[in-house]
Amino acid sequence: MMVKIAIRNRNTIIDHHGAISGDLLEVLSGNEIFVDNACNGKGSCGKCKIRVVEGQLPEISETEKSLLKKEEIESGVRLACLVTPKEDIVIEVLQKERKHEILTKGYMPDFSFRQGIRKTVIDIEKPTLENQASYEDSLCSGLGLARIDWNLLAGSKAGSVPIFGEVTGVFAGDELIGIEAGDTRNGLYGVAIDIGTTTVVCALVDLNTGAELATASMINPQKKFGLDVLTRITYQIENGKLGREKLQHEIVKGINTLIGELCAETKISRDHVYELTVAANCTMLHFLLGIDAASIGKSPYAPVFVRAKTVKAKDLGLKAAPGASVYCLPSVSSYIGADIVSGVYVCELHKQSGNILFIDIGTNGEIVLANNGNLLSCSCAAGPALEGMNISSGMRAAEGAIEDLKITEENGIELKVIGNEEPIGLCGSGILAVVKELIRTGLVKKDGAFIKKEKLAESDYRYDMLQLDGKKREFVIKTGGGTSDEKNLFITQGDVRQVQLAKGAILSGFYALLKQADIDMNQLDKVMIAGQFGAHLPADSLVGVGILPEAVRDKLEYVGNSSKTGAYMALMSVDVRKQMEDLAKEMDYLELGASEGYERLFTKCLMFV
Amino acid sequence: MMVKIAIRNRNTIIDHHGAISGDLLEVLSGNEIFVDNACNGKGSCGKCKIRVVEGQLPEISETEKSLLKKEEIESGVRLACLVTPKEDIVIEVLQKERKHEILTKGYMPDFSFRQGIRKTVIDIEKPTLENQASYEDSLCSGLGLARIDWNLLAGSKAGSVPIFGEVTGVFAGDELIGIEAGDTRNGLYGVAIDIGTTTVVCALVDLNTGAELATASMINPQKKFGLDVLTRITYQIENGKLGREKLQHEIVKGINTLIGELCAETKISRDHVYELTVAANCTMLHFLLGIDAASIGKSPYAPVFVRAKTVKAKDLGLKAAPGASVYCLPSVSSYIGADIVSGVYVCELHKQSGNILFIDIGTNGEIVLANNGNLLSCSCAAGPALEGMNISSGMRAAEGAIEDLKITEENGIELKVIGNEEPIGLCGSGILAVVKELIRTGLVKKDGAFIKKEKLAESDYRYDMLQLDGKKREFVIKTGGGTSDEKNLFITQGDVRQVQLAKGAILSGFYALLKQADIDMNQLDKVMIAGQFGAHLPADSLVGVGILPEAVRDKLEYVGNSSKTGAYMALMSVDVRKQMEDLAKEMDYLELGASEGYERLFTKCLMFV
Repeated sequence: MMVKIAIRNRNTIIDHHGAISGDLLEVLSGNEIFVDNACNGKGSCGKCKIRVVEGQLPEISETEKSLLKKEEIESGVRLACLVTPKEDIVIEVLQKERKHEILTKGYMPDFSFRQGIRKTVIDIEKPTLENQASYEDSLCSGLGLARIDWNLLAGSKAGSVPIFGEVTGVFAGDELIGIEAGDTRNGLYGVAIDIGTTTVVCALVDLNTGAELATASMINPQKKFGLDVLTRITYQIENGKLGREKLQHEIVKGINTLIGELCAETKISRDHVYELTVAANCTMLHFLLGIDAASIGKSPYAPVFVRAKTVKAKDLGLKAAPGASVYCLPSVSSYIGADIVSGVYVCELHKQSGNILFIDIGTNGEIVLANNGNLLSCSCAAGPALEGMNISSGMRAAEGAIEDLKITEENGIELKVIGNEEPIGLCGSGILAVVKELIRTGLVKKDGAFIKKEKLAESDYRYDMLQLDGKKREFVIKTGGGTSDEKNLFITQGDVRQVQLAKGAILSGFYALLKQADIDMNQLDKVMIAGQFGAHLPADSLVGVGILPEAVRDKLEYVGNSSKTGAYMALMSVDVRKQMEDLAKEMDYLELGASEGYERLFTKCLMFV
Repeated sequence: MMVKIAIRNRNTIIDHHGAISGDLLEVLSGNEIFVDNACNGKGSCGKCKIRVVEGQLPEISETEKSLLKKEEIESGVRLACLVTPKEDIVIEVLQKERKHEILTKGYMPDFSFRQGIRKTVIDIEKPTLENQASYEDSLCSGLGLARIDWNLLAGSKAGSVPIFGEVTGVFAGDELIGIEAGDTRNGLYGVAIDIGTTTVVCALVDLNTGAELATASMINPQKKFGLDVLTRITYQIENGKLGREKLQHEIVKGINTLIGELCAETKISRDHVYELTVAANCTMLHFLLGIDAASIGKSPYAPVFVRAKTVKAKDLGLKAAPGASVYCLPSVSSYIGADIVSGVYVCELHKQSGNILFIDIGTNGEIVLANNGNLLSCSCAAGPALEGMNISSGMRAAEGAIEDLKITEENGIELKVIGNEEPIGLCGSGILAVVKELIRTGLVKKDGAFIKKEKLAESDYRYDMLQLDGKKREFVIKTGGGTSDEKNLFITQGDVRQVQLAKGAILSGFYALLKQADIDMNQLDKVMIAGQFGAHLPADSLVGVGILPEAVRDKLEYVGNSSKTGAYMALMSVDVRKQMEDLAKEMDYLELGASEGYERLFTKCLMFV
């Protein structure tokens, strides 16, 4: 039996030879067609909607019925993770994926270059009967070495040894990692990499000058195994060694693609890329190196490693110069990764006097408090809501995403949409803006519940903004137009609860750190918001929702993608690496779950005050 | 079209789907059926004889006619490298390959063990919320290390990290190369390897005790690419990177097979084999590491490397413990390899007073002269004749090989055959014995030519021993019986010339070294004969043929496979390695081709005095 799956709005046909063993979501993911699935195909999030246009799927299940609206079911919408096609069908994928807005620039302190890679040119004479010196001996005496690694003598695609005449030796520290014909000193490049759970950014750097020649980014291709680290760790645990290999394969393939794009754009050979530096959270680093991340996912949350690692690129399958190495920045703990060490270093928290708070808001919120250079950190599971995930109308910050919203009596609901397009969903900043406005206008109470519609007069400007879906209240942002393709956009009580949990998690972390360090909020000199996501969250929203208290509103500073900046600095200076390694050891970590009175604090912080 | 090739005397049928693109020799080699081919399929040696039993091969070529005897052609004999079957045929392979006699024991001086590998047992506590130490941090503090290689943290088939409780750390020097569950200190093994051009020997050694638990050997599987190093180098040059990979693949596969046999025999896990040491000639070492050996084959004969090398076993595809390493012993030059350094070390030539000569007789003869510990070496291309190769009735030292022969008036020709079987050929010692007897009885003159048959009276006991094949004279050892399967055994004028060239090469090397060191032959205290092949050459033959002068007859000592012994010593002591590396640097090398008056000396040494 052969099943053909045509996807109308993607111009794609998947010919599946033989019966389909997995579900439709697996088939689509396997063919690189992305369908949102926050629960990683467990049939609980209800996000992986597709619409059947032609052909039949097996009868709808009770689980699907509970997760879909009546009108969705009527129009042929199904959940991809819960169905397996048994015949040829034509479907529509309901999420639009567009060009992603990814922040790659950021704040960077002054520092001196001291690259790990250098090149030396020597001249190697051909042997004669009178001087039968081996090629290795000639290299050793020319380069001042005691031996040459056998790998270099075995040659490479870049050129076979022995090469005589002008020869360039490539060194990583004291180690010879390349032998090249001619004088190649001008071709000396590296790549700084930031692997986020959601986004991967690579910057191609000229190691001779420090110039950032180009950057490229993509959605982390591990997304198919889950949107957050815990779902991916669960995937890894459930799939054993194969799961580890798949997670590693995806990120390696992704980085190879990005380096390929960078090299093509700049017309630089991959063989002249000698070093990669990687900043990432601790889980992403485990996945990159193919190291078991299971222990990160369960108490007591002890990772396999946190120290900096140097790895041969080719051992990971990363395509660069044959001898290229990868330096992974150090982490502090399972949930204070190298991305945060990088950020703290870039922001020089360890050097500044006074009290400074550093917050990286994402699926995991990481907070570091610097008290005259003494560093205390914590991590709080904010969940993906603030990144636009696991929210009924949520989406990533792409074109068509609502990024801001205002509710006024005069103009009703006013939207600001990325790319000024027709809105198709809400990204993180949009969700935050909505919840802030819902609180400000009283549509949502301090305890997080929508007010009852019957408490509003029909003449109230807010009356039509609330609707009931069965017994559940929801806030209507936009109702669909004439075509069935147009989505309704709304915020449910469940969505508000997601934001509320995130707020409670971050704010309680904030207070817990201050309490632990015995610092009053008013003693804070600065609050630095890091991360590509955080840069899009205005103070009004952060304070309006109560993620941060009103008292710090004027102390906010946005530092951008400090994780990538740290990877760049590590690429350009081995001294920076050493300092980062020392810094990681100096950072204390407060495990919130184990800290006294935390549960009570968290409950208190859930309130929208 | 499908061609089926049945091999009657091997019980093998080769189904070749589609037309055969190469020649029959390639098909046979590709199916692991060994056919002698000294010229590596170039159609010049005339050794790859097969006999057609059923079916037809394309018409015989002029080249075949010139290389085969009339009666051979009449009985259906053809040369496999010169024909391509176009239809189903049944053939016979004419060479019998039997169990090979390989010498594995030998002389060894006393020395102290100082193994490169050691094991330490520690206890690793599970982390808690109060102590969330990463697994790496726990290992580092338990083992006193600054960091753990990422590879070990990524785990292996032997067990996934993290492992808590009793844990054994495996160290190679200061480097941690393994983490094992429980106390595994009893399981600590290594393998000493001697890669000869013709034979590979592996010995499994208990690193805790130094006991040699088992040995295994095989014909070097690279034989299919040629019998001597130059033919294999030519193969490598003609086939570029692929040729290098194939040569490497064959030897790696061979060693893996031997280690597999050793582990099966002793019921020891491969995962407890942590170190391999390899002694071999310089070309074999280049092939093992996949390094271009082309420059070894042409003037000025400068190799790519001679220094000792340490390589990860898995990087070569060698199957042992995941972190196992391979130590390759140092060479001196292209033609004084690690096997000779090993032999000189084992024989303690550098430590002995007086004048000692060390000779390893093989396809390449290597000679080292020790003059109160000062070492001077040379190498001479003896050719494969002394190993029974490239001789019309030659074979390796296997059952059925004539290993000694006497000619007397009373008894005619008397044979000594390995395994006391019906003779099927002559091995090296047999050939040497024949030539010695031919000279002693005057059948061959001092200039190497057979005497004319007409100079002998018909009543002479030697009369029937000579026959004419066309115009060529030959010595008949045995004429075939009634069945066509029985081979005639004879020594041709060409065979005598091969031995004469070998004699000339070795003897001239011998004299050249003495002359260079200004030592008279009578000042020699000892002549040590090394190598598994040399051990089978009695003084009578060596002196009788004139490979060595009469004056040293009583000074001969046989030391056995000193190459393997050196590999064993290096396995059991890192101090030995260091001393061998120093020794290799101290050995001077005399390039005979470039030494004054060598041509004249060589011509003189050709004479059978």
